[in-house]
Amino acid sequence: MSKIVMKFGGTSVADIKIMKNAVSKICEEINNKKKVIAVVSAMGKTTDELVKQVKEISSIYDAREYDAILSTGENISASLLVLLLQNEGINARSWQGWQIPINTTENHSNARILSICSNKLEKKFSSGMQVAVVAGFQGISKNNRITTLGRGGSDTSAVALAASTKAERCDIYTDVDGVYTTDPRITSEAKKLDKISYEEMLELASLGAKVLQTRSVELAMQYKVKVRVLNSFNKGSGTILCDEEEIMEKRVVSGITFSKDEAKLTILSVKDKPGVAGIVFDCLSKANINVDMIIQNISDKNLTDVTFSCPTDQVKIAKESLEKGKSNKILDYNRLDIDTQVSKISIVGIGMRSHSGIAQTMFKTLGDENINIKVISTSEIKISVLIERKYLELAVQALHEAFKLSNI
Amino acid sequence: MSKIVMKFGGTSVADIKIMKNAVSKICEEINNKKKVIAVVSAMGKTTDELVKQVKEISSIYDAREYDAILSTGENISASLLVLLLQNEGINARSWQGWQIPINTTENHSNARILSICSNKLEKKFSSGMQVAVVAGFQGISKNNRITTLGRGGSDTSAVALAASTKAERCDIYTDVDGVYTTDPRITSEAKKLDKISYEEMLELASLGAKVLQTRSVELAMQYKVKVRVLNSFNKGSGTILCDEEEIMEKRVVSGITFSKDEAKLTILSVKDKPGVAGIVFDCLSKANINVDMIIQNISDKNLTDVTFSCPTDQVKIAKESLEKGKSNKILDYNRLDIDTQVSKISIVGIGMRSHSGIAQTMFKTLGDENINIKVISTSEIKISVLIERKYLELAVQALHEAFKLSNI
Repeated sequence: MSKIVMKFGGTSVADIKIMKNAVSKICEEINNKKKVIAVVSAMGKTTDELVKQVKEISSIYDAREYDAILSTGENISASLLVLLLQNEGINARSWQGWQIPINTTENHSNARILSICSNKLEKKFSSGMQVAVVAGFQGISKNNRITTLGRGGSDTSAVALAASTKAERCDIYTDVDGVYTTDPRITSEAKKLDKISYEEMLELASLGAKVLQTRSVELAMQYKVKVRVLNSFNKGSGTILCDEEEIMEKRVVSGITFSKDEAKLTILSVKDKPGVAGIVFDCLSKANINVDMIIQNISDKNLTDVTFSCPTDQVKIAKESLEKGKSNKILDYNRLDIDTQVSKISIVGIGMRSHSGIAQTMFKTLGDENINIKVISTSEIKISVLIERKYLELAVQALHEAFKLSNI
Repeated sequence: MSKIVMKFGGTSVADIKIMKNAVSKICEEINNKKKVIAVVSAMGKTTDELVKQVKEISSIYDAREYDAILSTGENISASLLVLLLQNEGINARSWQGWQIPINTTENHSNARILSICSNKLEKKFSSGMQVAVVAGFQGISKNNRITTLGRGGSDTSAVALAASTKAERCDIYTDVDGVYTTDPRITSEAKKLDKISYEEMLELASLGAKVLQTRSVELAMQYKVKVRVLNSFNKGSGTILCDEEEIMEKRVVSGITFSKDEAKLTILSVKDKPGVAGIVFDCLSKANINVDMIIQNISDKNLTDVTFSCPTDQVKIAKESLEKGKSNKILDYNRLDIDTQVSKISIVGIGMRSHSGIAQTMFKTLGDENINIKVISTSEIKISVLIERKYLELAVQALHEAFKLSNI
């Protein structure tokens, strides 16, 4: 019994009329004699509306209740999609997280899937069910409380279901044609990629390309799930996520991604002794700051400068937490320099492993455009830089051309 | 550990601001060292909105999916109420039907509660929980599918929880001050009753007084649950539902209730032979007609007239089902007379059992007002009549005065 997982995001189930698109996509697979597990997000802006109601009560809230509230959005879209499928004569039923069950950690609002018990699903498929519509984004903890998987968590639901039911494929339907070399809104030269390796996608996803939730890519890589990113509203082959080995001609650079609203914070003249970086980032982590790049320079004898980046909307809290550390005499430093006018650009590509000179090309391209690089950070298949925000679009366009991404 | 069940209807949890009323009612009980089980309906018009979405797909739908969709309304209000309680420092958590669990029949959209497993609730109360907020109106079938209990089903959830947890009291918070001798919109003479017997309330509830769901009253009577009907928005002692024995001075008539939009259908010259009534009402029942009063007169030799009443909006289907019976030669009759301009008025009171002359007073009062009685039907503690709709208000006012209900 060959199974396909099909995930429909919020824009693909925004209303009853739009849902009919999803119905026809599902019908195509049914006509190909496939069994379908359809994973749905909440309709359009439903989740935002629910969040608004919670925030009306308080900005601090019990995440268990928050999860119980948010999960209702997916429950509604799952059952509505079933009703539409049944109208087409298809044997379909809805499944909420607890009914399968999808077991997760107790880390509410950002839970991780521990296991999926697919017995009941398999049994229903054997007895005639053609489509199981699963409410995405949700699971249950060992205490039988409803958990959610974080924004974009339905992607992870879909990939995990594909892994646990050994599905042939996991198709992620969204409102874009696939994964692009960069954001098409920045340069019309951006090209859709036919294939991308899990590793590259992982870097792109975590760097801010909002096509897939990072954890769904990790899971897909771990369980070798064949993921396709497709457009609900257009025909097209989308982008296939696969193993590096399946990509014959390895591209040096596959994509350019960026994060616009970054801030650079430099803590000047920190006493340079073992454990000091630990203290700095302990202060920041306690304040829930998403620290991204970290650089440490020795500036003077026994003194060091520590630089890090974080999203601009977290600067205020980061500043407060460091100042609190100073006034509590946990942390000793001279000054805090904050630059809120920076953006991060990254180039990603598995070919970097075997090609030299990539960093040099990147830095030279930016230099030729008179763009100053403020911070550099690298991984095996990625190079990231911080630059002045006003140069962001220019930099993306120049790098896109320098790495000949429009010829992919 | 003394427990109180408090049920808050849709108008009592219509928005976050109004919910705070419920919070203060709950806090009062907590301050009295009570544990509270709060049962909530969906916020305001939420359920209607959800129904609208389902109807947009089709008028015929899978009741299991319908129930899964509708139940989300109560899940949201339950968790929001918990967040508000937690803001007041109260140890509260939400419970969905499947989490308790509340086991019901598989009769979706109109399921009956079979059992409530209150162990988990009790355990949580023992370990410090002060308030359990339970999503009303819902349960699960033995197949682990979500069921709903029919409109007004949260009343039944509340009474069933009170019975199974042996609660001291079940307070039903609504938007009226209690149970009245008749609808105050019809006569300003209507008086709130301090006490009413289960039996009387049962007749009133099933006759159209929309204060409580009929089944909740049946359950309360069966398990001797002390129910109070109270106003969320006013102070006041409300109305207590109790055993007949607890009402010292038995009133002859406790209330006058009515159902405005009734129709009277008479099937003329039906062949009078055994089983013919069975055939008539079999046709009607197959068409899901809610037949109310039934009367059979012998009109001629071997021929009989059968009269029944039903809500006006079911007349078309009733007519079609009878005509179909005739054309299929299952049923033989001469003519069908339909009067859609009637209303039903009923007087209810446990005192009727021991007092004679009640029917006579009723008929004489209506006669004195020149109101013609079209159909009469009686039970042990109730007399119902059908009259022309235009006399409805006059009749209610006259009867209210004749039975001195404003002096109660």
